[in-house]
This record gives sequence, C-alpha cells and structure tokens, in this order.
Amino acid sequence: MRQVVMHAPGDIRVEDREDPTIIEPTDAIIRVSATCICGSDLWPYRGAEPVAHQVMGHEYVGVVEQVGPQVSTVKVGDFVVGSFWASDNTCEICQAGYQAYCVHRVLMGTIGTQSELARIPLADGTLVATPGMPDADLIPSLLAASDVLGTGWFAAVAAQAGPGKTVAVVGDGAVGLLGILAAKQLGAERIIAFSRHTDRQALAREFGATDIVQERGEEGVARVKELTGGLGAHSVIEAVGTQEAMMQAIGSTRPGGHVGFVGVSHDVTIPGEDLFMAGVHLHGGPAPVRRFLPDLIQLIWDRKIDPGKVFDLTLPLEQAAEGYQAMDQRTATKVLLTP
Amino acid sequence: MRQVVMHAPGDIRVEDREDPTIIEPTDAIIRVSATCICGSDLWPYRGAEPVAHQVMGHEYVGVVEQVGPQVSTVKVGDFVVGSFWASDNTCEICQAGYQAYCVHRVLMGTIGTQSELARIPLADGTLVATPGMPDADLIPSLLAASDVLGTGWFAAVAAQAGPGKTVAVVGDGAVGLLGILAAKQLGAERIIAFSRHTDRQALAREFGATDIVQERGEEGVARVKELTGGLGAHSVIEAVGTQEAMMQAIGSTRPGGHVGFVGVSHDVTIPGEDLFMAGVHLHGGPAPVRRFLPDLIQLIWDRKIDPGKVFDLTLPLEQAAEGYQAMDQRTATKVLLTP
Repeated sequence: MRQVVMHAPGDIRVEDREDPTIIEPTDAIIRVSATCICGSDLWPYRGAEPVAHQVMGHEYVGVVEQVGPQVSTVKVGDFVVGSFWASDNTCEICQAGYQAYCVHRVLMGTIGTQSELARIPLADGTLVATPGMPDADLIPSLLAASDVLGTGWFAAVAAQAGPGKTVAVVGDGAVGLLGILAAKQLGAERIIAFSRHTDRQALAREFGATDIVQERGEEGVARVKELTGGLGAHSVIEAVGTQEAMMQAIGSTRPGGHVGFVGVSHDVTIPGEDLFMAGVHLHGGPAPVRRFLPDLIQLIWDRKIDPGKVFDLTLPLEQAAEGYQAMDQRTATKVLLTP
Repeated sequence: MRQVVMHAPGDIRVEDREDPTIIEPTDAIIRVSATCICGSDLWPYRGAEPVAHQVMGHEYVGVVEQVGPQVSTVKVGDFVVGSFWASDNTCEICQAGYQAYCVHRVLMGTIGTQSELARIPLADGTLVATPGMPDADLIPSLLAASDVLGTGWFAAVAAQAGPGKTVAVVGDGAVGLLGILAAKQLGAERIIAFSRHTDRQALAREFGATDIVQERGEEGVARVKELTGGLGAHSVIEAVGTQEAMMQAIGSTRPGGHVGFVGVSHDVTIPGEDLFMAGVHLHGGPAPVRRFLPDLIQLIWDRKIDPGKVFDLTLPLEQAAEGYQAMDQRTATKVLLTP
C-alpha cells in the first residue's frame, strides 16, 4: 500500500509499505476513504518537534476490510469513523468520557492513517459505523468528526459554552472554526472570534460567530472586556497552543468562567499567580473525541452541520507533500487527502 | 483602638490607632469578637512578600456597632461573619457565586481586622448575621467560616468532591484540614490526606480522612495512584501554593478529574504540556467565601461541624507577635486572637 512518511522536517514522501495485518484479535483493518493533515503535523514539519522516517496522520474515515475474531460492533463493509486515540471505551476512564486517556489507548499517529489501509486497534471501542454508506459530499464532514470537529466540540464543552453564554474563540484554524460551530450548536448567545484572515472570518461568521476581534494578546483581551461590559467572556476556547494564545484565553475569561484549551501546548508555562488571580476554570488536553462521535455523526448524517467546509484543499494522497506545504504556508486551512 | 501592625518582616506590634468611622453609606463598624492569623500572613512575615507598616488580618467575627444609612440587612447588635473580600453580592460576578471577584470588592486585609474595631465596606453584601448571639464555644468555628473553612469548602467544591469520589488533599494546614471536613460533608467516599505531622494526621482523621500519605512530590503521586487502581483521585485539593504542591495535585488527579487549588501561588509555574497531557480540570483562586457563608453558619449553629478545632492556640490580641511566631515555627496550626 501507499503511505505518507516524513523523513525529516519538510521532507514528505509517499512510499510503498507493507499492507497492515490483524495483530490483536481486537483489531480491524480499514480501507481509508479520506484522511487529512493536522495542524499538529506541522510541528515536526517545521522542525519544532523531532522527526525521522515517521509515518504520518491520525484522522480517518473508511470501510472495514477485515476484523479480528474478537471484534463484534463493526463488520466488513461498514463505513466507519474513529478518533486519533484508539480506546477500549469500557475502562473506568473511558466510561467517564475521557477516551483519550483510556488505560489501553493507542495513538493512531504511531500507526499512520495518511495511507491506503490502516490497522485500527480496539476496533469495538474506537470505531463508530455510520447509518449506511455515506453520500460523497458527507465524507469531508465525517472526516472532520475524526479530529478537528471532535476537538473543537470538546473545547466548547470544556468551556461550558451554552445558552445565555458569551463565548470567545482564540485561534481561527480548523479547530477554532469548528469550536465556533460547536458553541453555536450548544446554544451560545454570542460568539466572539479572534481572526485576522478575511476568508476565515467569513467561515467563522457562517459557523455562528457574531463578533470578530482582530487584536491579539493584551489588546485582544481589552477588546473582549469592552464587548462584555468589562467582565470578560463566560467561555473561552483556546485552539492554538502558544503562550500568547493561552494567556489571551485566560485573560478574556471572566472570574468563574471556563477556558477549554485544545491547542497542543508548545513552550507554554502558566504563571500560577495569574491563574490564581483570574479565578477561571481551565480544562483541556487531547480531546476525547470518541465521547462525541455518535452524536456528531448523526448531526452530519442529518445534514444539520457541515464541518467539512474547513477543508479548503483536496489532493490525492500521492500529492501529500503539496498539502503539507499549503498548510505550512497558510494557503490552505485544512487539507483533505484521498488515497 | 488597638490594632496589629507589621512594621517589617518578623516585626509585629500592637498599637493604638484611631477608631474607624463610617466612610461610605454602605459601611458598617463592628466590634471584633475574634480574629486570627492566616497562613498567607506568614509570607510577608518571612520576607517572601514586601511589607512596611502594614495593618494585618482579614478574618473576623463580631458585633455590629454602627451602620451607614444605606445598610439594611444587618443592624446594630447583630453578631456577624464576613469574608476576607468585601463584596456587594449583587453584581453579575457575585450573582454567579464569585464574590471574591465582585466588581466593587475591597480586600479586608487592606483595612486590617486584627484589631478591636473594623470598618466593613459593602456591609449588606459582605456580612451574614448569625441566628442569634452565639455561645462562646461556637465563636472559633464561626471565625473559621470567615476564611479557612470557606476556603477549604470552596476547594472541595472546585475539586467536585462528592458521593462516590476519592478525594486527595495536598496540605495539612488549617485550609487543607478543613478541605477534608468539606469533602466529608459533601459526601466523598474516600479521603486521602497528605501529612507528615502526627497531630495534624489525627485531626485529618477526625475530620474524615480515610488514608494518610506521608510521601510528597512524585513519590506522593505514586502512592495515590497505588491507592486508586493506578488511575489517580477523582478530586484533589491543593492548599499550599508551592510548585511541588501544585504539581503533586495535578499528578494525583485522574484524567477528567478535578483539582481545586486555594494555596496562594508563590513562584508557581504550570508547564502547559504537563497540564495538556494530564487532562484534569483546574479551578481555584481566592475563595468566594460569601457564597458558602449562610450554609456554613447554619451547619455550625446546628453543631453539625466543628471547624474551630483547627485553632490550637488562643491568645489575647496584645500577644499577636507570639501568635505569628508560633505559626511561623509551626508550633501552632492556626492562632485565634481575642481583642
């Protein structure tokens, strides 16, 4: 099969690799219908994280080709969506809704889903079958559910977005944009998007943003305070992972409010005194996407949400390198790859 | 009147000062029945915070002597309890239960309650009258409600202590001990106290601790994991304010669990990546004690809780310096002063 391998920062190749096989009786093999490039894939691509001959990708939708003898909830021929963490969905942590911390979890990035086939560990716990074979136009949205939508949704839930709430969103990448969509679906009254890019501002508004703030850092915080009677937003989503973004999120939140942070932290350190004085709730980390998948799939199936709009470039898997470049250079927000 | 003044680190004096007067129509003047020394008063005492000729104290119970023309909920002769933040209890932040961040808040430490009389701003919002004149033996417990009990209670609520939960408590000072009492009252199933002091361990057990862990830092975390099937506690209270305590609290919490932190942060920096990977909820800061005062006063009045037990030394106000010394040298956990 063909699979994307990052040899070194900036060096993306598509190579012939051995087809995956069932290793554990709880495994499934899927034929990948669509996969994509994640913002987090750019960290090694830019040399900000070490990388050497690494398989890439952790987002996927596809059709089950083979199942191990202990797999019972999905069958050959099912169209399935899974999260970037494989999880048993039965342990105490999974049952509490934190499948990204399943005691048996496997990081899909170590298997690589930017490929024609992929082995999915703990298939019963990890995969959710769609009600039937999806129309082609639903595939980008179902793929979004695998990570960016699930992550944005978790951020909105962690920030306790809901009716009567003012929600601010730091980060106008795919996750931030889908955090806006999630906040809207969860009933937020007002949604303030931090964004400086005209095209992203347009999508933010389409997904539900009511206000756009161009300022960043302390100026951004001051602007949110101005828009909220001096108090700050009730709920703030942090979807970047930088120091500035984290402090902007904490600063934009009113005392007693909630910050949901899902940007993968890089060199972030939170001064304890600032957090103490802010009085906010802080919750985040790798999203337990599996918790939300059944509901998200249904919303997509019923065409109530269209998160696939975050994909603004679709390329064949063979042109993965071009996709990485487009995301690195910000000519694309999110790139879908078709094996 | 007589009032405690810290002239410099380690230099505590009791001096003659002018009696306070009504300044704002919303003020009240109380005759202080009991006040005390806070763990946070030790920071300037030890030179870890700047101090020069500063009035001290922010915990108090007493009898109303005078009220401003706009005060309506307390009257002359009432026995009252208030928090260390004066708050209007009507603004949007107060109404959300975050009175420590009231838009009109006044820090009582700037007024000083280690004194015979004290001016209480925003008396209607700040003070809660007891059902009648309390018996003398109830006064230490009512005084505890003013800060240490209210703070421990907030920490337990922030950590979502409750039925079926395992709660761990970092810090065996007055706040940590009362966090244990709070967790027990909130219905926690199991309460793990970190403590190395025999006398504090005894009080911890009396307040509801089921397990004592003597180890600290990573070893302490390992011990909590061992006691919780490898997962960590559901709820952890951080009542110290040091880097070790904060990381011990985060490390002791299971993914999806809750850390309630009330130790005043000193030189704490939380690595974003560790917090991201931990997947815990983090909430804390100066406790909105006012939120809990009516319920806490009732529990004390009905003799259902006895938080006054944390006071293990009572001195006349004139001997305040001795009280500071005892807490600094850890010969006392918490010192009550009687003006």
